Amino acid sequence: MKPLLDKSILKSLRVPPGKKVNLRKDYPTALKVPAVDKNGARELLDEGTRRIAALQDKLYAQNTYAILMIFQALDAAGKDGTIKHVMSGINPQGCQVFSFKAPSQQELDHGYLWRNFLTLPERGRIGIFNRSYYEEVLVVRVHPEFLAAQQIPESRLGKGIWKQRFEEINNFEKYLVGNGTIVLKYFLHVSKDEQKKRFIERIDNPNKNWKFSVNDIRERAFFDDYLDAFEDCFRNTSTPWAPWHVIPADSKPLARVAVADILCRTLEGLKLRYPEVSQEKRVELLQARERLLEEEETHRAKTAGS
Amino acid sequence: MKPLLDKSILKSLRVPPGKKVNLRKDYPTALKVPAVDKNGARELLDEGTRRIAALQDKLYAQNTYAILMIFQALDAAGKDGTIKHVMSGINPQGCQVFSFKAPSQQELDHGYLWRNFLTLPERGRIGIFNRSYYEEVLVVRVHPEFLAAQQIPESRLGKGIWKQRFEEINNFEKYLVGNGTIVLKYFLHVSKDEQKKRFIERIDNPNKNWKFSVNDIRERAFFDDYLDAFEDCFRNTSTPWAPWHVIPADSKPLARVAVADILCRTLEGLKLRYPEVSQEKRVELLQARERLLEEEETHRAKTAGS
Repeated sequence: MKPLLDKSILKSLRVPPGKKVNLRKDYPTALKVPAVDKNGARELLDEGTRRIAALQDKLYAQNTYAILMIFQALDAAGKDGTIKHVMSGINPQGCQVFSFKAPSQQELDHGYLWRNFLTLPERGRIGIFNRSYYEEVLVVRVHPEFLAAQQIPESRLGKGIWKQRFEEINNFEKYLVGNGTIVLKYFLHVSKDEQKKRFIERIDNPNKNWKFSVNDIRERAFFDDYLDAFEDCFRNTSTPWAPWHVIPADSKPLARVAVADILCRTLEGLKLRYPEVSQEKRVELLQARERLLEEEETHRAKTAGS
Repeated sequence: MKPLLDKSILKSLRVPPGKKVNLRKDYPTALKVPAVDKNGARELLDEGTRRIAALQDKLYAQNTYAILMIFQALDAAGKDGTIKHVMSGINPQGCQVFSFKAPSQQELDHGYLWRNFLTLPERGRIGIFNRSYYEEVLVVRVHPEFLAAQQIPESRLGKGIWKQRFEEINNFEKYLVGNGTIVLKYFLHVSKDEQKKRFIERIDNPNKNWKFSVNDIRERAFFDDYLDAFEDCFRNTSTPWAPWHVIPADSKPLARVAVADILCRTLEGLKLRYPEVSQEKRVELLQARERLLEEEETHRAKTAGS
């Protein structure tokens, strides 16, 4: 099927493994697709969600692969809206969304992958992590005081901790991929100006006030530190088995199309099929069919005889 | 807003608490709504899912109530399809579906409510149980050998076990309702003839073979035993705080409309609102707004001065 966006566009969003990443220079926050305006983007997204719904039905029936979609971003980049608009329309029975907030005391009493492990998507499902273990090399790196609260033995808290975490994460994802879970990683890349615009909108619209906290402004002061942390994270965790995609997020409709397109291509690439039954089971099914029809005969015979 | 179906129809589907239930005589498997044909039902369902999506957004924002929808039925009554068609279109971030299969060894090492407890919907979410702890008074009652495998002390295995379980379930649901979870219980009521038709369809359509197992035919032999178990279950667990609804399920489109309507009315009855911020927080937000705009001034001043 014709993909939603040109292959060259998608390729430009994928972070090549092992290379130094410059988010400010090499990755735009606004995607330019000359042929697609806002309405065009909405139509493409509709087409994408229809395809995803059909593919997900087969994913579920086949019950071998799982998909894990990871969303990371700065505040107000559009994670919630993207999840809503790309995934509404698919069967919620095959879709599981988990949002990771500040860890609880119980969660802190385990290693940082524990709570993510518990919520991995089952086979046949699309799991979505709205934030994830990547916070452990992002917010925790920007605010090292969070690391101090993790009760990690001092002997494990050396300077190499970020390198160590990158390696742990890469190995974790390798394990996932090796056992049938496809890992799709999205960074919604929003400009500082666009973030400000969206913050003001959340203040001005009373129905959006609940989405805004003054802490968001405090975090905005660390905008550049976050970009630095993201750059180092992508350089070290964009792997051949689980690459990062940097999605230009200043335009919401186009960002959603890009997210949908990557999911769509991935699902199409799996060559999913409804499970075929074995010859032996086929015979059983046909015998069952006969028994069902005989039921009717028996019933008719009984009725006629009564 | 105008409800999807007439109030008198919905009332006729609700099982009154404490009364003897006769599923064969008092509850039709085919809903008759003279004014609504198949296309009309599709339109009503579209209208319903649109409303549910809007209401669920508020449920999520308000973050106090949760909804638990429980689906029980005989095989091929349409549980999966109903969940798919009623709930597709809503934000999967606010919807959690759990299907309960035969319990695992770990689950059997706990009491029967344990696995359901672990998967209760969080505040602000709609949780769906595709089968549930009700299997413990349905399939386990029809097949008492399953009870024997539950490792329950013999002293707890008296004749009164079903009565005991009804009471435990009622108390459990009372606790849920008392703490903000609304419990909606749906029985999809399919006729034995319609079940046969659907079984044959699953055999004849290769894409549906995976949904059919020869065991389904074996269970069909217990059709009447299941109806008896359901009748006793409804009599004992249709409570004022969590009543059962018997949904005529021979017509899929109308069954879905009825399920959506009950959910819709429930959500509308909660008078959900986007959270209003306190006066104090409002002041904070406006100060934050000023700081955001000042940022610009500072930036301009810097640029002008450079």
